[in-house]
Amino acid sequence: MSDAPPELCVVVGATGTLGRAITERLVTRGRRVLAVGRRETELAELATEVPGVTPCVADIADDGAITAIGAALDGPVRMAVFAAGLPIAGSVETVAPADLARGADIKLGGLLRLVRAVDPQLVPGSRIVMFAGSLGFEPKPSSAGPGAINAGVFNLMRQLGDVYGPRGITTHTLSPGPTDSPRLHALVERAAAERGLTVEEQWATYAAGTSLGRLPTPAEIAWAVTLLLDPEADVLHGGVLHLDAGGHRSIH
Amino acid sequence: MSDAPPELCVVVGATGTLGRAITERLVTRGRRVLAVGRRETELAELATEVPGVTPCVADIADDGAITAIGAALDGPVRMAVFAAGLPIAGSVETVAPADLARGADIKLGGLLRLVRAVDPQLVPGSRIVMFAGSLGFEPKPSSAGPGAINAGVFNLMRQLGDVYGPRGITTHTLSPGPTDSPRLHALVERAAAERGLTVEEQWATYAAGTSLGRLPTPAEIAWAVTLLLDPEADVLHGGVLHLDAGGHRSIH
Amino acid sequence: MSDAPPELCVVVGATGTLGRAITERLVTRGRRVLAVGRRETELAELATEVPGVTPCVADIADDGAITAIGAALDGPVRMAVFAAGLPIAGSVETVAPADLARGADIKLGGLLRLVRAVDPQLVPGSRIVMFAGSLGFEPKPSSAGPGAINAGVFNLMRQLGDVYGPRGITTHTLSPGPTDSPRLHALVERAAAERGLTVEEQWATYAAGTSLGRLPTPAEIAWAVTLLLDPEADVLHGGVLHLDAGGHRSIH
Amino acid sequence: MSDAPPELCVVVGATGTLGRAITERLVTRGRRVLAVGRRETELAELATEVPGVTPCVADIADDGAITAIGAALDGPVRMAVFAAGLPIAGSVETVAPADLARGADIKLGGLLRLVRAVDPQLVPGSRIVMFAGSLGFEPKPSSAGPGAINAGVFNLMRQLGDVYGPRGITTHTLSPGPTDSPRLHALVERAAAERGLTVEEQWATYAAGTSLGRLPTPAEIAWAVTLLLDPEADVLHGGVLHLDAGGHRSIH
Repeated sequence: MSDAPPELCVVVGATGTLGRAITERLVTRGRRVLAVGRRETELAELATEVPGVTPCVADIADDGAITAIGAALDGPVRMAVFAAGLPIAGSVETVAPADLARGADIKLGGLLRLVRAVDPQLVPGSRIVMFAGSLGFEPKPSSAGPGAINAGVFNLMRQLGDVYGPRGITTHTLSPGPTDSPRLHALVERAAAERGLTVEEQWATYAAGTSLGRLPTPAEIAWAVTLLLDPEADVLHGGVLHLDAGGHRSIH
Repeated sequence: MSDAPPELCVVVGATGTLGRAITERLVTRGRRVLAVGRRETELAELATEVPGVTPCVADIADDGAITAIGAALDGPVRMAVFAAGLPIAGSVETVAPADLARGADIKLGGLLRLVRAVDPQLVPGSRIVMFAGSLGFEPKPSSAGPGAINAGVFNLMRQLGDVYGPRGITTHTLSPGPTDSPRLHALVERAAAERGLTVEEQWATYAAGTSLGRLPTPAEIAWAVTLLLDPEADVLHGGVLHLDAGGHRSIH
Repeated sequence: MSDAPPELCVVVGATGTLGRAITERLVTRGRRVLAVGRRETELAELATEVPGVTPCVADIADDGAITAIGAALDGPVRMAVFAAGLPIAGSVETVAPADLARGADIKLGGLLRLVRAVDPQLVPGSRIVMFAGSLGFEPKPSSAGPGAINAGVFNLMRQLGDVYGPRGITTHTLSPGPTDSPRLHALVERAAAERGLTVEEQWATYAAGTSLGRLPTPAEIAWAVTLLLDPEADVLHGGVLHLDAGGHRSIH
Repeated sequence: MSDAPPELCVVVGATGTLGRAITERLVTRGRRVLAVGRRETELAELATEVPGVTPCVADIADDGAITAIGAALDGPVRMAVFAAGLPIAGSVETVAPADLARGADIKLGGLLRLVRAVDPQLVPGSRIVMFAGSLGFEPKPSSAGPGAINAGVFNLMRQLGDVYGPRGITTHTLSPGPTDSPRLHALVERAAAERGLTVEEQWATYAAGTSLGRLPTPAEIAWAVTLLLDPEADVLHGGVLHLDAGGHRSIH
């Protein structure tokens, strides 16, 4: 083990709030990160700011990503994380029907592209880690795309678990609810203005959606990713980690 | 009411095995059917063979279907049924990633297109009826697309229920497992040949997937659609009808 | 078939609001009903008022019910329905712990007692029908017992489905939410008085729990039971019928 | 913090295989453990062998346990763990109906008794940790009690999450499948002998029930408990941790 370079992790969507928190925490835990994203400048910045990060420009909604990511791997992949967001807006009444296809290409197709890219470098103990928001199980009609597409993600992850488990490679679906992020803060400010509420009042409606009374932070979500580095996390194979501070109703 | 024409139902995928069984049963129950599909000749044949059927050529994976179906409606729609299949083959290891997007366009986008087409003609007591196979909840890695896409369908139907319920319009997701259809018989014959089994042996593996020990028939599936014509079926609003003869494991 | 007596159904809890609605509807559909309950006088009244009803005094929370019901059967049982209520009050903070055991004896033990009583008279096409309220999947802490016990019921019914399906006997779990019953009306009046609301306001909070905007009626619930008399209802074997007018959140 | 005694945890069922593994790991992580069980001798042995363990004789199926546990607490409780087994044998066809009530008294009533005992000593950041086997969601008719009762446990835990979350106290349901324990080894040897298989063959049927191809160990389960000591585990509040190495079918 002595002279080997630190283990390699792959993070798709590494320049987003969540992706960056994960990337930083993985580095703190002694790993290198191949940071995948579409925006070259942002990736370069990330690589400058966080040691141990290598940028990889690729669009996960395009099959070219399979080759691009695959070519950038220099050894076994300890963890492949898909943390890219889903830029599909609109309610079930307003969303463009074809946007659901576009969303599927990003997260369902994208998940398969990531897996196929890293597959030759997966070894026993490797983790495949996917995010799928809690709307996938308990949707709201105001967010048609995140509901429908993430439901598909849960399904696809179960399938991948069946295929990779026998190789000793484990799969994990992390399911956050709304998270205390800059993006949500901006959204809340806008919504408060529109509805004539104070920012605090509008924020409280989100917190009320959890039974804990507060929203998870990106740091807490990143913690959940790094706990999967423990070898004992094998036992969590195939499961969903609900990271929503008690935000869903069903007994699951 | 006396001189009014029979109530109108819309069936997308009416020339398929399931769609045709539904169409015929709706006609037997005194309804007219607007039969929607891509294949003009098959639709024309159906309209010739089954009285009360009007053909409507439209591709539900294209937004043009919204106008085409909408223009063909001459009054309130009692029931809109999406019974088109999902022609996405391949396992989670072999399916083309972009095919998941194509599947989403057909069933997720397609569901929204159907709903938007009929929306102006929906009235209290109207039914929105969608099919989503049991693989959506309990997938098999050999059928990547039907698993992932149908999970999304369950999600989208919950959203539609939230939006249409307050208008007195009810939503129903019918979830069959494998069905005793000509298509499955052909599949079984092929698989038996490949695996060196008799057709009976191969068929038995499907039947073993249900606890009833036999597969549902298209006629039974069609029965489930027509029971929704009863006004009391309001009570089933928002729910999933599992039509799989005991083929799933979860307590849901 | 000509001179045979009408088919026999068994209804446990036949003198309750739901049980009575089911009993009457089964009789209207040409069946005889063995009405099981603890209260002799009420059962006698029911038998007087509804033709084709035979009373059977038995406490389903006691193993003696197995013999009592079994002895009262004179031929094949077409349908065995468990419609007895669960008299366990209290929130997760106030319920007596031992009351959960009492509740389990009534509905979990009771279900098994009913099934064992009728087992020798079950034939292909017979139905085992159980009620388990929607709190079993999506609980409220104000109703600890109905939540916990009905979750167990869903589980036990899946097990029974696995065992009875191969004999051609089907199992069906009916899952109502709050129902528009005299009991709920009384509860609402009491709660309105306590909270200083009008009855209409308090009632509206219940209706708001469904997406349909109104509560199911006992007649609608009874309709769902009698649709299981159709032979095609085989296809619903092993499933849950959600009779809550869109009252739950999960995609199931 | 300097001179304070180590934080206190409570483990019900501490002398069982799982309870002991958890107890030892909590001690290794610098906690004291109040070990609760019925068997005085075994508890005394445990206290002798593991430093930092205090025995507490109590039967969790009896309300007396509330007082007994409560009286033994000398300060805030960091974590209350219910790891007692469910000694209810039999299939849905053979189990004594009243045994389901007995099982409910142990795990449903028992959970409430534990929570009420520790309630005055719970503080923000405290954890309520419960075990509920995977049969609760996907049962087998050969294990009637574990299926039905654990389904109820999942439900009750959701309720407790709703009540304790607002106090900053989090709830966690750990859901193992079959575990590689001495008890299972004994069971497998017996079953192998009965069925004329080798022990290896019989064991393989269990491993085949996971997609990882091997059973979790008690040490891995104990790891999952201690990860909840991290403050970031707040985010897992209200959720189920599936510890079954990919042993269930549903997408949950």
